[in-house]
Parts: sequence; structure tokens; C-alpha cells
Amino acid sequence: MSSLVDGNAVIGQSGGPTAVINQSLVGVVEGLLAAGAGRPGNPIRRILGMRHGVRGLTKGELIDLTDFDRPRLERLAVTPSAALGSTRDKPDEAYCKRIFEACEKHGIRYFFYVGGNDSSDTCRIVNEVSNRAGYELRCFHVPKTVDNDLVGSDHTPGFPSAARFVAMACMADFLDNISLPGIKINVVMGRHAGFLTAASALARRSDRPFEPSTDGPQLIYVPEAPFDTERFVQDVAQVYDAKGRCHVAVSEGICDRDGTPIGATLIKGGQVDAHGNVQLSGSGALGDALADLLKVKLTPAGGKPPRVRADTFGYIQRCWPDASPVDASEARGVGRFAADLATSGDLDGTVAIERVNPIGSAQPYAARFRRLDLSAVAAKTRHMPPEFLDGHCNVSRAFIEYCRPLIGTLPIYERL
Amino acid sequence: MSSLVDGNAVIGQSGGPTAVINQSLVGVVEGLLAAGAGRPGNPIRRILGMRHGVRGLTKGELIDLTDFDRPRLERLAVTPSAALGSTRDKPDEAYCKRIFEACEKHGIRYFFYVGGNDSSDTCRIVNEVSNRAGYELRCFHVPKTVDNDLVGSDHTPGFPSAARFVAMACMADFLDNISLPGIKINVVMGRHAGFLTAASALARRSDRPFEPSTDGPQLIYVPEAPFDTERFVQDVAQVYDAKGRCHVAVSEGICDRDGTPIGATLIKGGQVDAHGNVQLSGSGALGDALADLLKVKLTPAGGKPPRVRADTFGYIQRCWPDASPVDASEARGVGRFAADLATSGDLDGTVAIERVNPIGSAQPYAARFRRLDLSAVAAKTRHMPPEFLDGHCNVSRAFIEYCRPLIGTLPIYERL
Repeated sequence: MSSLVDGNAVIGQSGGPTAVINQSLVGVVEGLLAAGAGRPGNPIRRILGMRHGVRGLTKGELIDLTDFDRPRLERLAVTPSAALGSTRDKPDEAYCKRIFEACEKHGIRYFFYVGGNDSSDTCRIVNEVSNRAGYELRCFHVPKTVDNDLVGSDHTPGFPSAARFVAMACMADFLDNISLPGIKINVVMGRHAGFLTAASALARRSDRPFEPSTDGPQLIYVPEAPFDTERFVQDVAQVYDAKGRCHVAVSEGICDRDGTPIGATLIKGGQVDAHGNVQLSGSGALGDALADLLKVKLTPAGGKPPRVRADTFGYIQRCWPDASPVDASEARGVGRFAADLATSGDLDGTVAIERVNPIGSAQPYAARFRRLDLSAVAAKTRHMPPEFLDGHCNVSRAFIEYCRPLIGTLPIYERL
Repeated sequence: MSSLVDGNAVIGQSGGPTAVINQSLVGVVEGLLAAGAGRPGNPIRRILGMRHGVRGLTKGELIDLTDFDRPRLERLAVTPSAALGSTRDKPDEAYCKRIFEACEKHGIRYFFYVGGNDSSDTCRIVNEVSNRAGYELRCFHVPKTVDNDLVGSDHTPGFPSAARFVAMACMADFLDNISLPGIKINVVMGRHAGFLTAASALARRSDRPFEPSTDGPQLIYVPEAPFDTERFVQDVAQVYDAKGRCHVAVSEGICDRDGTPIGATLIKGGQVDAHGNVQLSGSGALGDALADLLKVKLTPAGGKPPRVRADTFGYIQRCWPDASPVDASEARGVGRFAADLATSGDLDGTVAIERVNPIGSAQPYAARFRRLDLSAVAAKTRHMPPEFLDGHCNVSRAFIEYCRPLIGTLPIYERL
């Protein structure tokens, strides 16, 4: 074990919150406490939390977590959403310099940031700034995103719990759809990656997940497969003509052949966030536009429009308080692993999750953590691999076998 | 016990499904089985289910439930949504005559219909038609509605589970809102009655449910309090100015002072259903319109609009597979009670739930069932009583104490 530099540790949370992001916060804290943080003579003095991520850090808005007792930490771990507060700020070089200065000012030598690929990029730049300044600052990114779009990992903490919500919601909503038939569209989060929308396939009965002809959703649209409006109308018409109903899952980030988001085309007056992205979540506009399209296109001449409804799962899908047990455990684990690395060697990096047995193996699901360089993950986006797709509106057996062990046990329902 | 007429029993489900409507179906079936239905010599020959309610019955689309074994019934009971299929048909006198003819044709002497106030009206008319024809037909309405708008009952099966969903969703979403501050609107089901929207108040920490100034939702709008658009903007501005964020729950059925639904005014091209109502559910239009209004009104001169998001909880709130234990038990109970009445005397009616101890009593929550005449409930709508409201945008202590024992235990979360 190399010698540790004396100073404080700081932890922040960034980006969209999840059901398990506080597990990672507690994982880091317990890892630092296990290394003796806060005890007399220990190089790690205090464990500080940033209020609303790096935005709070630069303003000196910090909370001391060192003396939290075990029951409080455990309650915190099972609390959904980012308890420290989050931020959408995506720091550039100048902002990272201010972050570094705040670290210097507050005697911070251990920097942990829980977030997605923007957050790992922040870690990378802060790390470079501190290296150039000759200031020893250990920087660890702790992965988190419901979108599952971080490269280098089998999956990312936060995704399995959100996927569980999507599967449960589609399961219940499909039963609603067969009870009161019509065309039902559910819009799922995922700007660039379709993993979360794809998880709707887990709503199908477990003995027939590959048969969209039997169970809903019958049609699944992800950003990785170009969305053709005319073909969409035909797909729905085909299912609706055969069954008198149709259950559809659509990613908020679906794009046409040129990569133009369907949402951006349809949403008028949409907000643009700090990253220059059009607001997709927190609005029912995409679902409503697709529903209106179907009502127009599928109304027979002189006849009545079909019953078409659209729901947008919205923010509750990322914070629903019924976390996947695998996700809760792994989210805690990646935080702990980062703390263990930071207190055991002169290292920076991010934590990746590896699947021990291959997808579809008869062996039970198991995972292990490993360190990756920050540059391996920072500001990169992972997409659904082609082998997870089956045509333009379904997922493959490989995806089902990939996703199923992550999301926990689903209920089994009776059909008449 | 009066003598029972020989014949079949039929059960149907109507209107919007719920998480526990199949509990009521199984309650009726097990009550009839306990009375000996299907056994040699028993007057109740077979237990039939209507496919999609009275619509299926008139077409002879029936399923025989008599020989379902106990494990299958128990799986059915915990399955959300209407397993027999539901219908939105609201029969008039002529339609009810066709229902009666179908009963005659299929030798039906026991008629059970699980649904809301429209369904109790159907029972009432079918009962009158059969009485006029001198045909003995015992008609029982079994109550169900997430809107909680049936008169004569403390509450209605289906409501507590939907209220549980709304409370859990608002609890998680409020944590999301304090993590990434902004103005957040959640639109909740409830065309005429605000009970379900009011249940959002249970999202507040249990030691301070009457303090919207501390916990969200800070503003709650129900159809029973006239909605004034200008006042709404002022309410939000006041909270937003004080906290930099605002969490709002709005009923889909909010109306202005003249009783005109705000949704109907804002939603263009809205569909009208078989009851002549504008489509409110299955669209994000109301929430989006309110969000757009706030963006326009709360943008400072020359400044940026505030971050405003709207989610519409949609259909998953009525079928979410995490039923309130009290609701599951009572939904089973009202079905069983109806079957027991129908097999023990020459009776028709509906089942009401009475609260044994008054609201706010130190005694534990308890309920009992009693029979009411069909005419006491049929086609009537119950609203939130004035004592459940606190001003125009909050609920009272009485409502909190009314609702809390119904929805089951809620998680307790840690705040920093």
C-alpha cells in the first residue's frame, strides 16, 4: 500500500437521479470509513458531500458525512434520488479549474463523482488540471445512469432498477390493454440508447419472451433502429387488424434515417438544456404526437378513429422505490470499490462491471468490478449492440437473457 | 334462508380496471363455491364469466369458472386489471333488455357486475327489466373505482391501491425535484372527484403531512375547488420564489368557476368517449399546457424560462402491481359478501364499506360491509367533502387521517 496524502475526501452526485445512486454514495462513505477516515492520525480527515454536485463544491456548499451512524447510512442507501442534490452542469476546462481551486481551498485530496459519461469527463479534466498543478488529487468516477450508455461495462448501476420499473409498468399496462382494447403507446426514457425501452420486452410472460405476437409490447422502437413514420403506421395497423389492439413501447430518443430525433421534429417550442439537447422528458408531446398520427392514419373512410392512448412514463421510472436487488447491491459495490482503490494506491479511474459468466450461460448471474482509466469512459456513449435487436421493432433473445438476471423477480399473472 | 332458484351465475367486470378488481371476481366465485355452486343438486349450476362485461354477455361470450382450482383462483386474485376483460359500454333501457334476454337464454339467475356507478345503474335497470318480466334474477353490483366516487361508502375498492401508487410516485418524484430543482407538475386521474389527487399529500413525511411548506407536493388541485389559472400561476410563483422549486399535483378533472374542465379548454382535437366525455387520460396534453403556461408567465423580462416539467401518471396508476393490503382484502371481501347475500335470501343490491371507528380515532382501522339498494348508488357521483379540503390548493388533516390507514405502509426515507 502506497502512502496516502493527508486531506479530505469529497463525494458528489450528478445528472439524472436513480433509485440506487445513494447506495453508491453510501458505498464510498463506508469504504472510506473502513480505511479509517476521520480517525485520529488517519490521512483521510473528513468525508464531505457536495451539495448539487460540482456546482455546490465551487460555492463551498459542503456537508460533513464523516460521523453519520450506520442506521442513518442504511436509511440513506435505500432512499431513491440523489440525496446530496444533483446538477446538470457539464463543466468545461475553465469550470474544472474552479473545481480544482475549490478542492485546494477545502483541503480535498480524494474526489469521487457519481454520474454518467459527462461526470466521468469532469473527473478526467479535474484530474488533468490537478496533475498539471502538481497537486495530488485522486479522482474516481462512480458509474450511474438509467440509460445504460456507459462504455466498458456490462451494464451501469441505475439501469436495472429503471428496467424493472419499465417491465412492471408494461406488464400491468398490457393487462389493461387486453382488458379495454385499443392502441396504447408507452414512451420510455433513453435519448441515445434503447436499453431501457428494450426492457419492456421483459413484460412478456417469461415462457414466451420472444413472441411479441402473443404478449405485449408487440412493437418496440429504440433509437438504434431508424424510425420510419410510415412503417410505424403499417406496423401498428398490422397488429391492430389482427388483434383489435396493439401495445407499443417507444424510446423518447427515436430518430429518423438521418439521425434527426422524431421528438425534436414533433415537439414545438421545446426547451434546450445546458448540454444543447431538446427537452424530451417531462412532456407528453412525443407520445401525443404519435397517437394523433395513428388516429389520423388509421381512421377508416367515413368511420370512427381507433381508440389510441399514449402515456409517457416520465421521471418516476428513474426513481421508483422498488430497486432491483442486484442493482442495489452492485451500486453499493461500485462505490465501495472506488473508495477501496483510492485508499490503497496512487490510482484514478472509473469502475466497470463485468459479467462473470457469458450471457445465456446456465451458470447463475455473477459480476465483478474492475478499474478502468477515466479516458476509457469519459464522454463516450454506448448503444445497443446489433445482436440485441431483432429487426426494426423487436429485441433479440440475447437481450432478454442479458437483461433478465439484472432486474429481479417479476410477478407471474393469471390469464383467462 | 329462502329457497334459491335453479340456474347459472354470471360475473362481469366493467369500466377502468384496477389492481384489485380480480380480487372481487375471485371473492364472488369463492362465495358461490362455498354455497355449493356446481355440485350435484345445488341450485347454482355453473359460474360463468362475461368476456368484456355485458358486451360479451349479449354476444354469448362466456367462460366457465366453476372448476377453477384454488391455486389458479389465488393467482387470478393478485393479477392486476380485469382478467375477464372490461367494457366502456353504458347500457340504456334497450341494451339492458338485450342483457336480460341473454340471461334468459343462458339460464342465468344470479347476476354480478363489478364496476363503478355506471355499472350499478346497469344492475338496477337489468333488475327492473327482469322484475317486469316476472323472471327471478338476483342482481348484485360489486363496487370498484379508483376515483372513489361511489356514494354510500367510506371508500371504494381500487381507490386505496391507486392512492398508494400516487403517494409512492409523488414521494419519489419529490425527492427527484429537490435533487434537480425546478417546477414539476404531476397530473393524476380523477374526472369529477379529487380523492386520488388528494392522496399525493401522503407523499409528505408522516410526521408533517399538513405542512406543504416543508414537503411536496406543495400545491394540490382537485376538481372540487374551482381552478383559476391566474391564481395557479401566482401560487406556483410564490413557492418557486421562496424555494427555487415547486412540486404540484393536479387532477385531470380540474374545472374553472363555471364547471368547464380546464383540460377540455386546453386539449385540442380531444376524443369523446361513449359517455360523451372528453378524453382526459392517455394524453399528456393538460400537463404540457399547464407547463407551457408557467414557462410563459414566469419568464422574467429578458431572462430564461424556469425549468418546468409535467408528467401524467397515466394508466399505470390504476393497475400498478403493488396493491394496498387493506384494499386487496376488502376487494375480495365485497365480492364474497355479494355472493353470500345472493345465496342466502331474495335480495338484490350493492355492497358498501363502512368504517367502524371514526376518522382520526385512536382505535385501529377496521371496516364492515353492508348491503344497499341499487338505487342508492346507481349513476350518482360522490365528491370530496368540504372538510377534506384546506383552502383551494391543499387537503385537510381529516383527509390525511381518512386516507392513511387505507394505503398500506409507506417507506421512510432519509434526507440530508
